[in-house]
Amino acid sequence: MSKAIVLTSGGLDSATVLAVAHAAGKDCFSLSIDYGQRHRSELAAAERVAAQYTDVEHRVVTLDLSFLSGSALTDASVAVPTTPSAGIPVTYVPARNTIFLSLALGWAEVLGADELYIGANAVDYSGYPDCRPEFIEAFSAMSSLATKAGVEGHPIRVEAPIIDMSKADIIQLGMRLGVDYALTVSCYQADSLGRACGVCDSCRLRRDGFAAAGVPDPTHYSDSSTA
Amino acid sequence: MSKAIVLTSGGLDSATVLAVAHAAGKDCFSLSIDYGQRHRSELAAAERVAAQYTDVEHRVVTLDLSFLSGSALTDASVAVPTTPSAGIPVTYVPARNTIFLSLALGWAEVLGADELYIGANAVDYSGYPDCRPEFIEAFSAMSSLATKAGVEGHPIRVEAPIIDMSKADIIQLGMRLGVDYALTVSCYQADSLGRACGVCDSCRLRRDGFAAAGVPDPTHYSDSSTA
Repeated sequence: MSKAIVLTSGGLDSATVLAVAHAAGKDCFSLSIDYGQRHRSELAAAERVAAQYTDVEHRVVTLDLSFLSGSALTDASVAVPTTPSAGIPVTYVPARNTIFLSLALGWAEVLGADELYIGANAVDYSGYPDCRPEFIEAFSAMSSLATKAGVEGHPIRVEAPIIDMSKADIIQLGMRLGVDYALTVSCYQADSLGRACGVCDSCRLRRDGFAAAGVPDPTHYSDSSTA
Repeated sequence: MSKAIVLTSGGLDSATVLAVAHAAGKDCFSLSIDYGQRHRSELAAAERVAAQYTDVEHRVVTLDLSFLSGSALTDASVAVPTTPSAGIPVTYVPARNTIFLSLALGWAEVLGADELYIGANAVDYSGYPDCRPEFIEAFSAMSSLATKAGVEGHPIRVEAPIIDMSKADIIQLGMRLGVDYALTVSCYQADSLGRACGVCDSCRLRRDGFAAAGVPDPTHYSDSSTA
């Protein structure tokens, strides 16, 4: 039974990816990063999602990314946008997936895991450079050279199973695998109870995804939400 | 004047690399990672080294790497070796350079820097996979795909100017550039005053380097040291 590290954010995409890895028979280790993100209730959601599986160990690593100022997700002075933007959105956190995959890579080497699963998606978030297939491939290539495991002939690869899927397809896949999306939080500015604003980019993509998938939206919206 | 992030550990190698970048006319930003390392006086040394340059900003990012257990540098239950080992030494921290370069990459993107300098060296530490030129190249290739800067045609590259140099050559280069090696701490288990044990791998390489370079060794050894 091969081991896999799964980066779990508490959102819809990574919950689906955890289900994919688990259904593939991997011995899964869930890793969340507490990086001072605005949407802190995502961390509680990640714990709930991982706890659905009694055989999955969940770990939270704290890393203060406030020095990467300028992103709406880490810098309180930057507003979360409520309309789609041209180019790379201000919610982009510089090098975030590179940093998270690097931490996962270190843990993989300690555990003897040979795969890193990430919920990167190039369709909805095409503006994020580190959600593209070519980035995932380049990180895998680098990983095989970076690690003791790679030197010894056991490279650690990155798996991004939903990278080319639409949000609706991701939701339908997750439903088949038994994902409880009511446990997940996608909103960029969810309140402390995990209730979604209903108006940010992430809420919009999620709501549209459930509609397109023909699945009832289980999202908990805040009372003030216009959703 | 182009900007560069320089990973500074407080040791001899990164002090030399900071001097190289500064002498090359780069606008240097020094980054140290407080990862719970055993040799904590290195962090104070890194601050002293950076403070030699009035035009260099120094930043410390805290990241608890204790979940990467099993390395002598982060796991108190693993002894620091005092004799050279075959293969990859137990002082190897899984994916450390990947993690540190990833953090530097994020900061570079925020600052608009186009180079990451690292004191990786493949000669003395040939057992560390992430100190080899092929790793550095692969990280650069990945970086150009990972970042907004790369997408916009301004890739961020990794520079490892001492990667192929002997310790003696590094010291001679640093002396020409005015590096004050008395400020640096290389020992894997230096005491709280930054005094070296004189017997670990890192002390041995450093002492032999000064001898081979024909430069008086300015290292502060502890009273109990046998050096």
